[in-house]
Amino acid sequence: VKQIMECVPNFSEGRRPEVVEAIVAPFRGKAGVKLLDWQLDADHNRSVVTVVGAPDALGAAVIAAMAVALAQIDMRRHNGAHPRMGAVDVVPFIPVKGVTMEDAVTLATAVGRQAAERFDLPVFLYEAAARRPERVNLADIRKGQFEGMPAKLQDARWRPDFGPPSVHPTAGVTAVGARMPLVAFNVNLGSDNLALARDIAARVRHINGGFRFCKAMGIALADRGQVQVSMNLTDYTRTAVYRVLETIRMEARRHGVPVVGSEIVGLVPLAALVESAAYYMGLENFAVDQILETRLDD
Amino acid sequence: VKQIMECVPNFSEGRRPEVVEAIVAPFRGKAGVKLLDWQLDADHNRSVVTVVGAPDALGAAVIAAMAVALAQIDMRRHNGAHPRMGAVDVVPFIPVKGVTMEDAVTLATAVGRQAAERFDLPVFLYEAAARRPERVNLADIRKGQFEGMPAKLQDARWRPDFGPPSVHPTAGVTAVGARMPLVAFNVNLGSDNLALARDIAARVRHINGGFRFCKAMGIALADRGQVQVSMNLTDYTRTAVYRVLETIRMEARRHGVPVVGSEIVGLVPLAALVESAAYYMGLENFAVDQILETRLDD
Repeated sequence: VKQIMECVPNFSEGRRPEVVEAIVAPFRGKAGVKLLDWQLDADHNRSVVTVVGAPDALGAAVIAAMAVALAQIDMRRHNGAHPRMGAVDVVPFIPVKGVTMEDAVTLATAVGRQAAERFDLPVFLYEAAARRPERVNLADIRKGQFEGMPAKLQDARWRPDFGPPSVHPTAGVTAVGARMPLVAFNVNLGSDNLALARDIAARVRHINGGFRFCKAMGIALADRGQVQVSMNLTDYTRTAVYRVLETIRMEARRHGVPVVGSEIVGLVPLAALVESAAYYMGLENFAVDQILETRLDD
Repeated sequence: VKQIMECVPNFSEGRRPEVVEAIVAPFRGKAGVKLLDWQLDADHNRSVVTVVGAPDALGAAVIAAMAVALAQIDMRRHNGAHPRMGAVDVVPFIPVKGVTMEDAVTLATAVGRQAAERFDLPVFLYEAAARRPERVNLADIRKGQFEGMPAKLQDARWRPDFGPPSVHPTAGVTAVGARMPLVAFNVNLGSDNLALARDIAARVRHINGGFRFCKAMGIALADRGQVQVSMNLTDYTRTAVYRVLETIRMEARRHGVPVVGSEIVGLVPLAALVESAAYYMGLENFAVDQILETRLDD
């Protein structure tokens, strides 16, 4: 079976398309690597790239892209709305097909070590690749941002997993990790009551007592006159999409508000959709490999 | 974009595995062709093979498999529960990816013509490949079965589309066609009332006034103490899986009977599942190419 890993590196450049074009160039026309998507966000001054490939080829291409980013981005002049700590801010590896989370951790560790050595860059391992519990959560690593990193790294608890114990002058620090695919899932309510969307978001998200792998916030869709519960589901295998949707519907019903639609933003793993279809259809014993398209390439 | 066609030839041999093994051999180890499944049914004395591939390579492999079947099967000695008219009873081509129904018709026509010339075999074109309205329905072509074909072909209306106007002595006649993928979909009811399952089947199937692309019958699941509406959905793009399921649920509710589960037998196109998931989740603007797995191979 073909092995496919995904990587979604975030680079601290969202305003110079030619720079991002140069950064993603190592993902093009390379055997075993496929660039799926890349998006610049000028407000965030950040770009998010989605690339898949055979683990070794993907790892080598990520290192090559990092080399370009480190040469082109000077964090001393960087500003943007999104929190950031380095030119290559975060490099998550995600198992897609024929690979396990353990394989993703192995690849993240190898890439983190290699990047640290080659670029003299402090690297933190996070999420499934973390070696210390306080480094599992990316936000904890990034706290203080680029400007606060020199002081933070003085603290022995924040000695990097790889690389020098001091920040790279222009590139800061980088987090390399392994995680499950995110499902960006939004549920629209037939109401313009933002407080209600925020209240329901709080009921389903982990931090307030909701589902473990659900991050949520309430937002207004001004042009539609509706509100939305906007979510990231960080492990759909344990916090299922349909379960969150039906819980939101149940909470909204209390206020006489209907769910009027939902939305998946960007890419979603097939298994996440199949699980929801199987729930609603009451499918017994359905296997993903009954889907014709999954059988075409091996 | 890669072009992938499917073919599901039915051969009139379900009791001699070594013969079927020889018939499917041309589908193995061939560039551009992939054997997905083959199943023998001894009661029916029939085997059903599922193979996919690039149109030209697939067509050539089907001709090669037909040559083996014609050499090995003598219809004069054939008996089985399933209606049949030839050693290679029926050869449907099904568009899967990067190809249209028109492409499937073109391939079916080419394979039908080539088989007729090479094997001196009468060939009828059916379903989307049919050239006359009375040949659209396979059952109409097969009526009379192998034993009745010599008399049937005397009738000018049943002159074959290709090949001689008389049956092949040992191989009878063959139907080659193009059709949409079938979805074999069963719905289980929380009742042991077979009459109810039959009644609901009649309400949803085309022949009695139901959905145009739905064939259905009621059957008993003796070991479960339940009954089932067992269906073939012959064009899921126009008769959606979820619509049939919800109609059965609605009819069963009238009798206080719940739908307790459902089942997809064999292979199903991704789009059929996605459409049902999108209905139940109220997904807005979802595209199949948001599914990560569809982006891996191009």
